Amino acid sequence: VDAKQITIVGTGLLGASLGLALKARGFDGRIVGLGRRLVTVERAKATGAVDVATDQPDRCVPQSDLVVLALPLSGFATVFQQIAPHDHDQLIISDVGSTKLEPVTTARKYLPQPNRFCGAHPMAGKERSGPEAADAELFVGKPCIVTPETDTADGAVQMVESLWRTVGMSVLRMPAQEHDRCTALTSHLPHAAAVLLVQVAAQHGGWNVASTGFTSTTRLASSNPPMRTDIMLANRRPLIEAIDAFSHSLTALRKALDHADEAAIRRILETSKTARDNWLNDPNR
Amino acid sequence: VDAKQITIVGTGLLGASLGLALKARGFDGRIVGLGRRLVTVERAKATGAVDVATDQPDRCVPQSDLVVLALPLSGFATVFQQIAPHDHDQLIISDVGSTKLEPVTTARKYLPQPNRFCGAHPMAGKERSGPEAADAELFVGKPCIVTPETDTADGAVQMVESLWRTVGMSVLRMPAQEHDRCTALTSHLPHAAAVLLVQVAAQHGGWNVASTGFTSTTRLASSNPPMRTDIMLANRRPLIEAIDAFSHSLTALRKALDHADEAAIRRILETSKTARDNWLNDPNR
Repeated sequence: VDAKQITIVGTGLLGASLGLALKARGFDGRIVGLGRRLVTVERAKATGAVDVATDQPDRCVPQSDLVVLALPLSGFATVFQQIAPHDHDQLIISDVGSTKLEPVTTARKYLPQPNRFCGAHPMAGKERSGPEAADAELFVGKPCIVTPETDTADGAVQMVESLWRTVGMSVLRMPAQEHDRCTALTSHLPHAAAVLLVQVAAQHGGWNVASTGFTSTTRLASSNPPMRTDIMLANRRPLIEAIDAFSHSLTALRKALDHADEAAIRRILETSKTARDNWLNDPNR
Repeated sequence: VDAKQITIVGTGLLGASLGLALKARGFDGRIVGLGRRLVTVERAKATGAVDVATDQPDRCVPQSDLVVLALPLSGFATVFQQIAPHDHDQLIISDVGSTKLEPVTTARKYLPQPNRFCGAHPMAGKERSGPEAADAELFVGKPCIVTPETDTADGAVQMVESLWRTVGMSVLRMPAQEHDRCTALTSHLPHAAAVLLVQVAAQHGGWNVASTGFTSTTRLASSNPPMRTDIMLANRRPLIEAIDAFSHSLTALRKALDHADEAAIRRILETSKTARDNWLNDPNR
């Protein structure tokens, strides 16, 4: 990636992993960690993820070629407002948020030249959080969705795609709205289902016979609640549509069970298994 | 386990794994594989899971101390009817079915002395099926639920518990009805959710951004459709109740999203994460 200084705002799991991954792949520029709480950025510095730790945007944004927001979505408005006074024509701004329409909308509201903002969603993570959980190999072989708008500067798109390719990701480009609709269906809805399956067990029992199937189906329920609340709120309209589609399917299955309709149940299970197995076996996946 | 001859009816994944596991743990009696299709039982014999392969109940039931049904639930009525003419006072009959009320109800209908039937549910499995997928270590360290009725013979309960302890399982006793209510909540409902999450993606898209979270949440959707159809039908009343509890929670979450009620969403996610993490960390689990 062609940059002399990269500032990572927020040095939790993703931000610190990005720093470690860049260094592991020979990035020879400077990596600055910028955070609201200096203590967290210092923790990231201690792991070697960033060269400099600061809580002062004026000390790093003017000298940076790229600023990457790697903090919860609810903090984006504040950070854009802090960056704005130090923005310059060579600066490219990006993020790692799990929803993509809200970041670009917020960027348009607060940045003087929002066409130098290009959002990205590196699809990598783990259940543990914080800079100590950071991993230079976190991104390798995983997809990164880059979501330029029609007026986004070419240089911004190229810089952002180059960043994530450098740390080993395969880059996929799509409109922010399409990204959000798709992640609602295959990421936020599964998360919601996992959470509610646990809630049902907590309220009605069954833990004593819960087995590996329950563990894997509910894995997402152990992910970070404040971060996940942000994501659900930022993407609530597409998520509500996904919930409605799911409810519709659930009602159909309930009806088939109520009527002991063996053929209908079997058809649902077979269609679903085939779709999942085809996806898993897709060589282009 | 104190038996000279054990007959395993149905030598798919579970039946063949039971045979292999008994042999691996030094069981020195005879293991007979009984099946409707001789070719499947011969495949199990080829893997060393059974000593003898037959499709004739009269050739093995009279000489057996224990008969274990390890075939789909929909075949139980037929097998009980085939066993009945060869039943004898020393014979204990059990099963490995994933629901427990239907097997004992069917046993009461067809067996001359159903108090020598004691159901069990070894909670082990994998996505692959058939005798070639069998594994002598499949049961090790996993729970087996044994579900005697109030009138079940002590000898039957002891034989069945001893069988599953021999192959490495921890045995838990509970009434069949309680077993079925609990597995509906933490096994059959998660399976239904996994299936419908895949169905929603198949109908509305999102595969292109589906990641590891989707893979683990939907893992159960790849399990065997005919077997799962049997389970859903056998346990449809408890499953419908579990679906209704889930729908109730889903409606509440949808409402919180619609109102952008951050506190309510966060409370749901936090309660669920705490419940799951406590369960995972429970030393008695």
